[in-house]
Amino acid sequence: MKRVMLVVAYDGTNYNGWQIQPNKRTIEGEINESLSNLLKEEIKISGASRTDTGVHALCNLAVFDTKTKIPAEKISFALNQSLSEDIRVRKSIEVPLDFHPRYEETIKTYEYRILNDKMPVPTKRLYSHFCYYNLDVEKMKKAGEMIVGEHDFAGFCSAGTQVLSTVRDVTAFSIQQVRDDSLANEIVIRVSGKGFLYNMVRIIAGTLIEVGRGAMPLDDVRRALDEADRSLSGPTAPACGLTLVNYEFLNPKLTSIL
Amino acid sequence: MKRVMLVVAYDGTNYNGWQIQPNKRTIEGEINESLSNLLKEEIKISGASRTDTGVHALCNLAVFDTKTKIPAEKISFALNQSLSEDIRVRKSIEVPLDFHPRYEETIKTYEYRILNDKMPVPTKRLYSHFCYYNLDVEKMKKAGEMIVGEHDFAGFCSAGTQVLSTVRDVTAFSIQQVRDDSLANEIVIRVSGKGFLYNMVRIIAGTLIEVGRGAMPLDDVRRALDEADRSLSGPTAPACGLTLVNYEFLNPKLTSIL
Repeated sequence: MKRVMLVVAYDGTNYNGWQIQPNKRTIEGEINESLSNLLKEEIKISGASRTDTGVHALCNLAVFDTKTKIPAEKISFALNQSLSEDIRVRKSIEVPLDFHPRYEETIKTYEYRILNDKMPVPTKRLYSHFCYYNLDVEKMKKAGEMIVGEHDFAGFCSAGTQVLSTVRDVTAFSIQQVRDDSLANEIVIRVSGKGFLYNMVRIIAGTLIEVGRGAMPLDDVRRALDEADRSLSGPTAPACGLTLVNYEFLNPKLTSIL
Repeated sequence: MKRVMLVVAYDGTNYNGWQIQPNKRTIEGEINESLSNLLKEEIKISGASRTDTGVHALCNLAVFDTKTKIPAEKISFALNQSLSEDIRVRKSIEVPLDFHPRYEETIKTYEYRILNDKMPVPTKRLYSHFCYYNLDVEKMKKAGEMIVGEHDFAGFCSAGTQVLSTVRDVTAFSIQQVRDDSLANEIVIRVSGKGFLYNMVRIIAGTLIEVGRGAMPLDDVRRALDEADRSLSGPTAPACGLTLVNYEFLNPKLTSIL
């Protein structure tokens, strides 16, 4: 028996999120099916992040146990032959039998893309949230900087989660305006942290959009944090703009594993 | 009666190209249908560039004649309500009754994107051609600079075209390596000219890829041009990497029309 970790990238457009569900197309379900066919045993992967419907990833992680004699590092190549083109297993690595990325200290980075223009651009529509209002990036930057650090993020969390604590630590924030020659004006937000609450990054993005278009003063962002009140923050921004872009292991022995 | 020009952007992934064909989904066909429903008369648009199956556009042009009393500039908004999200009419402008962009002197710019990495990236797969071989951008630049200027491009044209002359003038070429934080290494080629032969930009891209991966010496690019021989240039690169990004009118009275 050995344990294998997969580094997985996907276009979430046509999936009902990561987590397996009966009669629905999910990333976990597709990978389980392909792996089971490939290795000729029933495989159940266990993911590090259960991304929502429509959310994309450049780097999500999952582990599974197998009796196969195929070397771990060859599994990714074989797997990509049968997976649909919108899922790619970038790497497969043998890890200790008791290893799980969810139990390790990691920094996750999410990217949220906003297409800020007068008109949607068809070739950007699947990976950027379109926003017609002119956004003030400097103001959004100020709001984003407020959320860096350890806070009670209950005001930035969708209802219905059952977590013991809503305190989280945002370790990094950046916002960048990317005006490419293709006439498209995109705003790219990046947020890093050890863990996030349900919908937290999408609520941060939705709040920053409200601030950027002048519909919410900076003071209200501060209040949403201080009073930990969901009714004070902005709406949950749409899933299509969100991509899980990176995982980083803090244990120095693991930093180069990915 | 008035003539209206449309500025059209589209994601070509799910279309059999621009030109209308029976029982096939085409950009021209979709716009004709939406316009006819909107204006309650049979509308036939006439496009400036008949892009191929799978090719994208940020800026293609088309004109049509109509008896409608709706102001030309309002048509785009109404039209976008009924068009599918992968086609957007960015502008609708009234033009003289004898105006057609095809009869005007214009510079068209095409972009060809190559994802040059060890592994395809799912969220880039629809708009970039994936190339596994490590490409030498400096060599590709030298090859690209050779094609700038007026040449007989018969060596860079797919068979079966019935044009009077295969001489064309490439007015600008650029190549850029874009390494974004999302771990993706893209190479973006831009080619501008007054006109192009059938598949010319895709054959230029295919030739540059051969040069970049070391499979074709620069001398062969020179020979393909000098001898105007299609067997000497590279393969036709796939459609998904190609986007018609810009039209520029050379007539000073028209430069600001778009």
